Amino acid sequence: MRIGIIGASGYAGAELLRLLDSHPHVEVTYLTAHAYAGKQVGELYPNLHSYASFKFREFSPDEALRKADFFFTALPHGESMSAVPSLLERGCRVCDLSADYRLEQQEVYEKWYEVRHTSPRLLKEAVYGLAEINRDAIGDARLVAVPGCYPTAAILALAPVIKEAAADGPSIIIDAKSGLSGAGRSLTLATHFAQADENVKPYSVGSHRHTPEIEGVLSYLKGEKANIIFTPHLVPMSRGILATCYLELVSSPSAADVDSLFRSYYAESKFVVLRGEGDFPETKAVSGSNYCHIGWFLDSGSGWLIVASAIDNLVKGASGQAVQCMNIMNGWDETAGLETLAIFP
Amino acid sequence: MRIGIIGASGYAGAELLRLLDSHPHVEVTYLTAHAYAGKQVGELYPNLHSYASFKFREFSPDEALRKADFFFTALPHGESMSAVPSLLERGCRVCDLSADYRLEQQEVYEKWYEVRHTSPRLLKEAVYGLAEINRDAIGDARLVAVPGCYPTAAILALAPVIKEAAADGPSIIIDAKSGLSGAGRSLTLATHFAQADENVKPYSVGSHRHTPEIEGVLSYLKGEKANIIFTPHLVPMSRGILATCYLELVSSPSAADVDSLFRSYYAESKFVVLRGEGDFPETKAVSGSNYCHIGWFLDSGSGWLIVASAIDNLVKGASGQAVQCMNIMNGWDETAGLETLAIFP
Amino acid sequence: MRIGIIGASGYAGAELLRLLDSHPHVEVTYLTAHAYAGKQVGELYPNLHSYASFKFREFSPDEALRKADFFFTALPHGESMSAVPSLLERGCRVCDLSADYRLEQQEVYEKWYEVRHTSPRLLKEAVYGLAEINRDAIGDARLVAVPGCYPTAAILALAPVIKEAAADGPSIIIDAKSGLSGAGRSLTLATHFAQADENVKPYSVGSHRHTPEIEGVLSYLKGEKANIIFTPHLVPMSRGILATCYLELVSSPSAADVDSLFRSYYAESKFVVLRGEGDFPETKAVSGSNYCHIGWFLDSGSGWLIVASAIDNLVKGASGQAVQCMNIMNGWDETAGLETLAIFP
Amino acid sequence: MRIGIIGASGYAGAELLRLLDSHPHVEVTYLTAHAYAGKQVGELYPNLHSYASFKFREFSPDEALRKADFFFTALPHGESMSAVPSLLERGCRVCDLSADYRLEQQEVYEKWYEVRHTSPRLLKEAVYGLAEINRDAIGDARLVAVPGCYPTAAILALAPVIKEAAADGPSIIIDAKSGLSGAGRSLTLATHFAQADENVKPYSVGSHRHTPEIEGVLSYLKGEKANIIFTPHLVPMSRGILATCYLELVSSPSAADVDSLFRSYYAESKFVVLRGEGDFPETKAVSGSNYCHIGWFLDSGSGWLIVASAIDNLVKGASGQAVQCMNIMNGWDETAGLETLAIFP
Repeated sequence: MRIGIIGASGYAGAELLRLLDSHPHVEVTYLTAHAYAGKQVGELYPNLHSYASFKFREFSPDEALRKADFFFTALPHGESMSAVPSLLERGCRVCDLSADYRLEQQEVYEKWYEVRHTSPRLLKEAVYGLAEINRDAIGDARLVAVPGCYPTAAILALAPVIKEAAADGPSIIIDAKSGLSGAGRSLTLATHFAQADENVKPYSVGSHRHTPEIEGVLSYLKGEKANIIFTPHLVPMSRGILATCYLELVSSPSAADVDSLFRSYYAESKFVVLRGEGDFPETKAVSGSNYCHIGWFLDSGSGWLIVASAIDNLVKGASGQAVQCMNIMNGWDETAGLETLAIFP
Repeated sequence: MRIGIIGASGYAGAELLRLLDSHPHVEVTYLTAHAYAGKQVGELYPNLHSYASFKFREFSPDEALRKADFFFTALPHGESMSAVPSLLERGCRVCDLSADYRLEQQEVYEKWYEVRHTSPRLLKEAVYGLAEINRDAIGDARLVAVPGCYPTAAILALAPVIKEAAADGPSIIIDAKSGLSGAGRSLTLATHFAQADENVKPYSVGSHRHTPEIEGVLSYLKGEKANIIFTPHLVPMSRGILATCYLELVSSPSAADVDSLFRSYYAESKFVVLRGEGDFPETKAVSGSNYCHIGWFLDSGSGWLIVASAIDNLVKGASGQAVQCMNIMNGWDETAGLETLAIFP
Repeated sequence: MRIGIIGASGYAGAELLRLLDSHPHVEVTYLTAHAYAGKQVGELYPNLHSYASFKFREFSPDEALRKADFFFTALPHGESMSAVPSLLERGCRVCDLSADYRLEQQEVYEKWYEVRHTSPRLLKEAVYGLAEINRDAIGDARLVAVPGCYPTAAILALAPVIKEAAADGPSIIIDAKSGLSGAGRSLTLATHFAQADENVKPYSVGSHRHTPEIEGVLSYLKGEKANIIFTPHLVPMSRGILATCYLELVSSPSAADVDSLFRSYYAESKFVVLRGEGDFPETKAVSGSNYCHIGWFLDSGSGWLIVASAIDNLVKGASGQAVQCMNIMNGWDETAGLETLAIFP
Repeated sequence: MRIGIIGASGYAGAELLRLLDSHPHVEVTYLTAHAYAGKQVGELYPNLHSYASFKFREFSPDEALRKADFFFTALPHGESMSAVPSLLERGCRVCDLSADYRLEQQEVYEKWYEVRHTSPRLLKEAVYGLAEINRDAIGDARLVAVPGCYPTAAILALAPVIKEAAADGPSIIIDAKSGLSGAGRSLTLATHFAQADENVKPYSVGSHRHTPEIEGVLSYLKGEKANIIFTPHLVPMSRGILATCYLELVSSPSAADVDSLFRSYYAESKFVVLRGEGDFPETKAVSGSNYCHIGWFLDSGSGWLIVASAIDNLVKGASGQAVQCMNIMNGWDETAGLETLAIFP
């Protein structure tokens, strides 16, 4: 299958190239990047030898169709919705890595992303691409909205137990720590080495755009409105997200009950590694891989549960997850091209 | 005043030497270190030029008294209590940086530290050396128990608002991120560079020894039992602690009310820098300094408050705070020797 | 083919496990680790899911033979020579990752490694496992001595031009920068995070044990004695070596000549990526991969050449190179199991 | 004395503010920053509490004169020469941290910096502000050109032995490793955290603008033309430069001779710490301080000397050195405001 990547010059695009290079069923045949049109992959990414002389092009839907059969769109939010409909109209299936089709409701999207949605009808059609909770729907989808990095980590940590959470109050606190590649390739003072190195800081507290995405999915899983407090932090590393989640349980489960909830929920999910009670994950153990590690601790006195998950934000949090969705959409083994173990140390 | 440091070879001891080198009223005249007795400071710490040929000695209370007038004990927990009483008996005043005199109750100490306390009567006498909440008592103290690094960060974040916190439930969550120097100079796999670099992980969840210290002080400030959930994390940097605290407020204060609580509480505290609502602190901004930066956000929908504080774990979280206590104990300006600004970037 | 790894608990052993997990022709069936005998891989390496419950055993040559067909020895120098002969005697072929069989002369080994060599006759038989200079000999070898990490980087940078180097004088300077995993998993103050982070320092100047290995191979390639000055440095990163090499050229080649030398020398070497004149390599571009990137600059005024090479010290500098040798020894495609691209950023 | 800083928003300006905050003889009274005119220091530098509400202004020579008595110019090269003459004309003394007055010859400046020099007559008058080689001239200077960071490290390493170096050939190789703050506060892909982290790479090989500065000073000290090969590298840390220098000695000195050369040369230099033969420096040992540590090794076989020096690029390599010059220019103790020890670990 011939693959096109629209918006291939950013970190998610480069990570798609890395992963697809060793995928058994596909070949990348079309790359676009507006700002780098005409340049070669090797000028931006010294690691991507096999694509070194492959040129980025300006996006054109008709050319795209001639060159490729299946598409990943890895454009910034607000730009993806200008490319996706033109591909769908021409009969293609698309995995979109932007935020443009992740939220169900147009007004929520427009409020948080501060841009008008130009293809709101697709919001209903798009399938949320978290295979661990949505595998079947992904298989049939024409458009998959690949989850954000923080939502992936948070939802995987919470999905098995969200039904046991207290219904009222916020009671669900997500304290997340991300490496700097999560902020992308764009230059900012916050991602300038001398400012970010040897530093930890919260940012976008109370206003991060992944908040409605997480709340939406958790509410769907819980069957009633789930309110979260979400505090992202930048930590001085290139890759990785650790989401430490706190939630009040109403059902007074035992540790064995919690263990069962996790094990049964993820029985079919090969990329979820359950470390068990008191055995917490670390980001380095998943670096470069599509795995998510989860550990938890039940604070028996208070009835609160602490669950932490670790992912590589560019793999399970973006491009690896997109490949996982592509595999499911095409009826291939879900793990094709994604089996490599994490790099440690 | 002549200063002795008992247990001077660890990071807290070295940091005392660094800070006291430019202190206007003191001179270091006595250093002990069991494992390094006979060795020179310069063999361990290449930055401490002015002490390069100063030799560590084996601790002897009588020699200590001949050589110095005021003492810092920077021994591991369980060892400090074998040195402190002998100094007090000889009429000295002591700032102890270990955990041995921080908890009021002998049984709590013995349960969490798993060692019998050999001078339990001093537990009542020791004054908790957090100047921002205990300034007057420190002035008169014979023995000051310098707070732990995590407790310093957490208590400074929470003290002004703890009375507004919900009384039942845990409702106080402290998600703390620490640099690696907090683990000391002892070699462990967790502090081995290749394992700790590019990595974030929770540790000692539900069992960290700073838990009873934080709960004890918060309960004292609140006037009733305060239960916390405390989750420490290691982040890949040498120095710094960021404590992100979450608590449910019962009084429904406005943002202006919260601001007032912080400003009035810290009106006299020169080392606390209030950044205000939505302006969160970063550890790099306090690196090498005795300052604590605090920022907060009121989640108005849920009534929860998010407060984050940043300190340098070796300065405000250990040796700088000990110097601050020494200053108060001796009637000097509280900031003597501690005025230098943090190093940034 | 069934693979045994003797001394599998260190970083080189773990990296072998990671790489062999996706190798098309082999299966790991036997692991030993003296200090961890009886423990499972998952207790040491959280990334190695597929081996999580695989147990380390005490080495026994007879059991080894029953369990596996081909062996990697990844023991410390001085210990490898106690295992290798017993495997060879039983008819096995071995890739040894230690330094025990890298030097031709017994007295040189014994001088630099300060231990008596117990199987000196094997020194002559062992083939130096740098495929790029020794491909044919490796194919027929019974015992391959996998090169050290610094020698790999330095020799790959210098091999194509060493014959043009001035014969007298040292004139070959190798200033190398290594990440901390090169120091292995053993705990030392130099590899303690708080000491190594934010720090660069030379070490073992004039005395590093890789010196005779580099000099021996360069002398062989040059056809006369090559003297080097070798200065290794530790830099604060987990993986990677950059070797910046300086040599005086006597032949006054043009830049085009130098380019030709490199291109013809490495025409058959798929793992060497020549970046060309003025385009210097970076360690991040090879992280996790078996590639070596090389760039150079001809200082025309002085006639000196500056060549820099970058490798991942645990892959091309150790375990990846060992797998490359195994592939050649078995007549497989040299790149089998080693095609994955580096992880960047 | 009232101090003005022209171009105070960059890292060198911020570091001047940090250092001058605890200087006994001065007060900062005037700050300019074109891009940030009207903004407060606290908006850019969270560590500079004491200046938090101090506003940057647009530079005006007349206002400058009314507000301050002594000036530091910390503008980019090419811009400094538009401010410095106007201050000198009005009778002020100036320490310039840019490159505009470091080179003696106009044509050399214009060739390397690619800009026309607009006050070439001042090139002859300006005194090179490396106190360790130029103390007396600095005392009388009206305009001091503060050395670059790499030249400071390299020249301090080489000055005591440069007269012993071989006259012909390049024979002087400087392999320098710098932290990222050396690249300043301006955003570039090379200083983007995710690109620079876990990475080492050479840059500007054969073309770095500090080359003529180093060659000029070494030639002056040697009494004949000194040619260097200078290879700067970026290493993943915020602060610090390590310069590893290699030079061929013609005089065949013994190690004791070399030791004498260093000790006598730096007998009066309090900021130079000689570690001696085989005891190499590390950047962390000087972090935040004005010290330079030097170690060396004599390769007796070849007659080459390896000397390494470590400095904090923002202190001894920029702002600390500027303060040192100011002290000398005003007849104060050379160490005033600069005595604090480095922060370690």
